[in-house]
Amino acid sequence: MLDVCLLGTGGMLPLPDRYLTALLTRFNGNKLLIDCGEGTQVTMKLLGWGYKTIDVICITHYHGDHITGLPGLLLTIGNAGREEPLTIIGPPGLKRVVEGLTVICRDIPFEIKLMELPLQNNSLQIGDFFISAFPVQHKVPCFGYVVEIKRSPKFLPDKAVINNVPKETWRYLQKGETVEMDGVKYTPDMVLGEFRKGIKVGYVTDARPSKTIVDAVANSDLFICEAMYMEIDFLEQVKKYQHMLGVEAAQMAKEANVSELWLTHFSPAVTTFNTACVTDIFKDSYLGEDRKVCTLTYDG
Amino acid sequence: MLDVCLLGTGGMLPLPDRYLTALLTRFNGNKLLIDCGEGTQVTMKLLGWGYKTIDVICITHYHGDHITGLPGLLLTIGNAGREEPLTIIGPPGLKRVVEGLTVICRDIPFEIKLMELPLQNNSLQIGDFFISAFPVQHKVPCFGYVVEIKRSPKFLPDKAVINNVPKETWRYLQKGETVEMDGVKYTPDMVLGEFRKGIKVGYVTDARPSKTIVDAVANSDLFICEAMYMEIDFLEQVKKYQHMLGVEAAQMAKEANVSELWLTHFSPAVTTFNTACVTDIFKDSYLGEDRKVCTLTYDG
Repeated sequence: MLDVCLLGTGGMLPLPDRYLTALLTRFNGNKLLIDCGEGTQVTMKLLGWGYKTIDVICITHYHGDHITGLPGLLLTIGNAGREEPLTIIGPPGLKRVVEGLTVICRDIPFEIKLMELPLQNNSLQIGDFFISAFPVQHKVPCFGYVVEIKRSPKFLPDKAVINNVPKETWRYLQKGETVEMDGVKYTPDMVLGEFRKGIKVGYVTDARPSKTIVDAVANSDLFICEAMYMEIDFLEQVKKYQHMLGVEAAQMAKEANVSELWLTHFSPAVTTFNTACVTDIFKDSYLGEDRKVCTLTYDG
Repeated sequence: MLDVCLLGTGGMLPLPDRYLTALLTRFNGNKLLIDCGEGTQVTMKLLGWGYKTIDVICITHYHGDHITGLPGLLLTIGNAGREEPLTIIGPPGLKRVVEGLTVICRDIPFEIKLMELPLQNNSLQIGDFFISAFPVQHKVPCFGYVVEIKRSPKFLPDKAVINNVPKETWRYLQKGETVEMDGVKYTPDMVLGEFRKGIKVGYVTDARPSKTIVDAVANSDLFICEAMYMEIDFLEQVKKYQHMLGVEAAQMAKEANVSELWLTHFSPAVTTFNTACVTDIFKDSYLGEDRKVCTLTYDG
């Protein structure tokens, strides 16, 4: 079960009634946050999931609306009593940016591990979170992220027996380990069923559409994507600033065969939304809302 | 006429219903801001005085709740179209802190002038604002500020005539300049009336009480002072963290003979306030409120 909360839906600058776009996910009590603009800690306070167990913060890029809340959040996480290391992931420049922003963060009582990733496809695992960071086209180096929770194949005792696998090895094989015993090698596939799809969430902002994104978010349970404006009328404007339209996000959602699309990172100028043009392209498109929450479960 | 707005009343961290403590003053269309925590630009948006004409930002000290909003605000001021230089004033460390925090502020379209002042009594003038920065006792180097709008003495043409001051010199003397003409020196006091009190606002947070503060804010029209808690019961706690009680602020307000005291920088833990203990000491004490506004005028 992966809990997902879209903490805000704004782009460019925080508004009194719209927090900046950021995503919080929670699995087995551990949390992963993507982006941290000014006020992200405040919408998190309203959400009430707590601060102490934020283990990973992924930053898409270093525009103010995606990162200026970082020093304040780190201080608040520290005040919440965290002592375990916290990992921050981001595109090239991370070290310089975090060192700059945390100039006022004395006495943070936990270690900050920086993972400055190259601007290419990256895959890594932190705790239960399998994270993919992939480059997207924006005015500055920028990542889209996919967060996955893997699902182990079913353990099949009958299959183990048929394959003459000694009972002592089952618990290791079940975890995906290979075991050698009395000169015989036992592999997980001798006791496990077929591959089972896990839970997959894609998050893309700020970016122009691309095949890289479609490939990365393919078959996601939830795809959260920026939509600075909805309609095609604003194409020139989003091209100029390297942003995306709702209709473009919907087209990618369709091509990527995702289950559901949430739109976010709205222009501060937009207060009413034409969603028909988006759902015409991809039916399961929804406007994001501050603190829109869902719980994703394994299929079947 | 000096407009004053207490932008927020929180301390430590921003809350959904309480912005962090900061002060905005406006005189003749120019603005001076003191402190800039996370969300200060949002409460300013609610206030509606605009961003473009912020000429001076004074920082009391470099704890997160007083400065982490700076990079976002600078970007927003830039987006509002400011091109004129903006001055930032603060205690030692200013350059390092601002350079760090603005690591993500590319392309700010105005010059930032940094005035890193020594930890002593400082007086300076920027436009119509006469600013005093004075050291206060906190866990890190910290300034209290006084902002004054001076009032010129009245011009007295009868006095000028009696003193045989040539008419050609009047406009210069009126502005406070000294003029020499045909070997005779003419001074402002030959044409001007008595000293007239201007407008004076004091702002102190975070600090323990001190004589320096009382002297600095003496006879202020408005004294805005921190009150982490109100009652004497919390004395040990505020001493430990170098903060102040409402009753201590009231005692200073009384000694300093200020006209009015506004309390602010409340602990996030406090939601109901015992104001009686404060008004018992100084009658004209008021709880601050987010965006509490007043307009101060010259006496008489």
